[in-house]
Amino acid sequence: MNAAQPRLIDHHCHGVTASDLDRVGFEALVTESDRPPPAGCSALDSQLGFALRRWCAPVLGLPRHADGDDYLARRRELGAVAANRLLLRAAEVDVYLVDTGFNGAKLLGPPEIASVAGAAAHEIVRLETVAEELGEVTAEGFAEAYRERLAGATERAVGVKSIVAYRHGLDFDPQRPTRREVIEAAARWLRDGRPRITDQVLLRHLLWAGIDRGLPVQLHTGFGDPDLDLARCDPALLTGFLRATQDRGVPVMLLHCYPFHRQAGFLAQAFPHVYVDVGLALNYVGARAEAVLAESLELAPFHKVLYSSDAYGLAELHHLGAVLFRQAFAAVTGAWVRDGHWSAGDAVRAGELIGSGNARRVYGLN
Amino acid sequence: MNAAQPRLIDHHCHGVTASDLDRVGFEALVTESDRPPPAGCSALDSQLGFALRRWCAPVLGLPRHADGDDYLARRRELGAVAANRLLLRAAEVDVYLVDTGFNGAKLLGPPEIASVAGAAAHEIVRLETVAEELGEVTAEGFAEAYRERLAGATERAVGVKSIVAYRHGLDFDPQRPTRREVIEAAARWLRDGRPRITDQVLLRHLLWAGIDRGLPVQLHTGFGDPDLDLARCDPALLTGFLRATQDRGVPVMLLHCYPFHRQAGFLAQAFPHVYVDVGLALNYVGARAEAVLAESLELAPFHKVLYSSDAYGLAELHHLGAVLFRQAFAAVTGAWVRDGHWSAGDAVRAGELIGSGNARRVYGLN
Amino acid sequence: MNAAQPRLIDHHCHGVTASDLDRVGFEALVTESDRPPPAGCSALDSQLGFALRRWCAPVLGLPRHADGDDYLARRRELGAVAANRLLLRAAEVDVYLVDTGFNGAKLLGPPEIASVAGAAAHEIVRLETVAEELGEVTAEGFAEAYRERLAGATERAVGVKSIVAYRHGLDFDPQRPTRREVIEAAARWLRDGRPRITDQVLLRHLLWAGIDRGLPVQLHTGFGDPDLDLARCDPALLTGFLRATQDRGVPVMLLHCYPFHRQAGFLAQAFPHVYVDVGLALNYVGARAEAVLAESLELAPFHKVLYSSDAYGLAELHHLGAVLFRQAFAAVTGAWVRDGHWSAGDAVRAGELIGSGNARRVYGLN
Repeated sequence: MNAAQPRLIDHHCHGVTASDLDRVGFEALVTESDRPPPAGCSALDSQLGFALRRWCAPVLGLPRHADGDDYLARRRELGAVAANRLLLRAAEVDVYLVDTGFNGAKLLGPPEIASVAGAAAHEIVRLETVAEELGEVTAEGFAEAYRERLAGATERAVGVKSIVAYRHGLDFDPQRPTRREVIEAAARWLRDGRPRITDQVLLRHLLWAGIDRGLPVQLHTGFGDPDLDLARCDPALLTGFLRATQDRGVPVMLLHCYPFHRQAGFLAQAFPHVYVDVGLALNYVGARAEAVLAESLELAPFHKVLYSSDAYGLAELHHLGAVLFRQAFAAVTGAWVRDGHWSAGDAVRAGELIGSGNARRVYGLN
Repeated sequence: MNAAQPRLIDHHCHGVTASDLDRVGFEALVTESDRPPPAGCSALDSQLGFALRRWCAPVLGLPRHADGDDYLARRRELGAVAANRLLLRAAEVDVYLVDTGFNGAKLLGPPEIASVAGAAAHEIVRLETVAEELGEVTAEGFAEAYRERLAGATERAVGVKSIVAYRHGLDFDPQRPTRREVIEAAARWLRDGRPRITDQVLLRHLLWAGIDRGLPVQLHTGFGDPDLDLARCDPALLTGFLRATQDRGVPVMLLHCYPFHRQAGFLAQAFPHVYVDVGLALNYVGARAEAVLAESLELAPFHKVLYSSDAYGLAELHHLGAVLFRQAFAAVTGAWVRDGHWSAGDAVRAGELIGSGNARRVYGLN
Repeated sequence: MNAAQPRLIDHHCHGVTASDLDRVGFEALVTESDRPPPAGCSALDSQLGFALRRWCAPVLGLPRHADGDDYLARRRELGAVAANRLLLRAAEVDVYLVDTGFNGAKLLGPPEIASVAGAAAHEIVRLETVAEELGEVTAEGFAEAYRERLAGATERAVGVKSIVAYRHGLDFDPQRPTRREVIEAAARWLRDGRPRITDQVLLRHLLWAGIDRGLPVQLHTGFGDPDLDLARCDPALLTGFLRATQDRGVPVMLLHCYPFHRQAGFLAQAFPHVYVDVGLALNYVGARAEAVLAESLELAPFHKVLYSSDAYGLAELHHLGAVLFRQAFAAVTGAWVRDGHWSAGDAVRAGELIGSGNARRVYGLN
């Protein structure tokens, strides 16, 4: 890391696998698809694949752009434990905020990541997972049981997260559901054997309970895996909800946002509690990270933009997020300084805010 | 202004405040938000803020990138009257078309701007404001009274403007409402004590009355303040209305458009009466003005693109719009000429069209 | 063509006119509008017009950027036959896949194009045209008659194409209509005198019949002529249909996509059978081809992106598509190689896939 480069807090990522991976297992973690590529094709033939070979191969002692087979052979030779350590240490991230709500038990969690990376790590609690893990509960008692369970689950957490984008779409009724509606929805859910929660009323209830909890609320927006309907994940669809929550003093963190990051930037400009990132996108667009990062720095004030990787499973993705962000931020703002648009001091200050200062302030990280 | 740079007509802006401003008052005019930034943060930590300090500070005799406090101290020292004069004169804009429909009475209007700037200025009349200022009227007489009042209000105006995007969204029924519907809607409006007009039927009636008036009709599209729902401000939602009006010979001017300027460019390509600008956006994206301007020059034919600032309140914004447009246009087309895509002569010609020629033709300015 | 440049298969274009064209006729083919430009303006004052004068003029023996009148005079002097030959030969495209479903009889078809261009050419059959050309048919017999006719019409074709985007929008019910629904819809269509098919049920039936046929299914998405409603042509609206067809083994080719090419890229990433191009767009954005092509290479894996021109009528457009693609691809990936993001070998390999390899694999071309 260059002395002039900003310190980083990765305000949204997932756990890391400690398993050794074969080609199929590795490729499944570098694509949003849940199916194999066409015969004869590789998921590594993508911006993410090229970027991974470019930036991670040297960390494992290989030349830049080492091919996929060589990379995987080297990774197996080192073992996942050593590879994770090399990749996470070299990422030079100070703090990881880890969403533990998806396959959390199968992956290294916040304490292990902290130890492997030589960093701090805190937990982000997924609102839907807390509900689905509730013990015995009645429809009448659902709201109170959820409130208590959420309070317990977030005792040491620094934020909560909603995946209403996946479960319903962001085009939900922005108003808090009534007590009566929640009881009826809970009754349906219990009667149906407590399936994965996709009922709009329950999802809205969980989200509003997240607001009530008072910690920053992260929301998945934009692209993700094939479960979601991208046209319903435009963060601009949250406008009514943002209007309804703007005077609560609870930060709303719009995650990923791509390809709607300009819409998200407007929301960060217009509403006092809205923050944005282009995590996930920077990794997936690789050589285009500069272009996408620059677009994310249009309307969003610089005290409203954060760094994240949204890395899941592979330590490569935690590493790549940090490297691509630093490289892209330096290139983009360096050009603005060179062309006289920004002063050099302003570029450093914006980098500190976006890299870590905003996260430190919003999540209350000493 | 460089000899090779195009003359400018600012085809859409608002008035200028003649009041001296404190930090809070000034910051409120450099953001679309209607609330203060988070504690310890400044609205000037944004592309607009950085661009303003970059380009306006030297006009007031300060170094580039002077900090916000120094800038405001200097501005107060000069006084708003002198600062306005310096900023507007240095903008070197030939003609301002001024929307007087929002806080018009509190701001310098077209004649004052003309005098301060040493330029010409004409009025754009806001369709909704004219309706809300109607005198005593009956439901039955509404349409005729509006027609007469609009005729009077636009006697010397060069265009009209609709803010149906704010009041309803652009997803309105494209057909002209019937006489019966207008009477019923007017009756509701009168019964409710003549509130701000948000009734879709009345808004559509005003818009069609604007078409009937025959002057160019400006439409707010794209981002703006938090009142609007961005997802309903995509100009592509106007397709039905554009189809219904395309043979009327009345130009429809799509304002701002960001982040839907590519959609707007398609409409300008497809429909004979559609024109576009990325005013407002260029100011707000600052160092990204080149990128956004370049995107606005994709599908829209060059006889369909106009310059505007959409500046409101601060003469800084009228100044910045002109400077950023000239700088961005020169940089973008200069690169195309250098790379052999465009001839130098074509670049000059396109600059003349977009800078002033199209506005001159469409608004019938001498 | 530079030795390092990829071979090209134009996987979606239309026929070429063999008529000599006057200025009005020529200009009508370089715009998506169906009306003349404003008085005193020319459709050639556009990115497409500037690019055409830049790249096609030298092919006809004129200097770069020759003006429109000189270009047309030279074209008439040569005659359309000679001009077509010069332009198509210089395009150096190996294979053209020609959609014959729109004015096919008035234009040179696949065999003539093959002969003029010194290339191979195959047919793409338009699903709606086949239905509209059915002979005597009953409502009960419609589905079977269509199936047979489509089988016959596609005997030597390499793909089919749907224009449901134009006829309805991409926001159609993704499920296959029932036999009963198809009979009823066919009965309505027959009763109405067999108009252009715009009935959603029939359009869905044709599309599913295309899937059943087993050849790659091309879908118009994104911008086009003023018939379409751009807001309803976002390929993300196809998500349900893509989910319903993803295990059929039939490739779905999203054509054009602009300005939704990032959404399309996500679909290509997420679904195993989805492919994308930015044909049409590259021609229309001219000097911006690099920017748009780069955006199309973000989420889409490189085994999922194809080259096309979507050229219609003018051999200039078939030529321009190839030239702009090659130039833009070399510039974009060249910069990535220079900046160390990609290896030179990977750039060559990606170019081969996108230029022709993917088309060869998907369409089963020798």
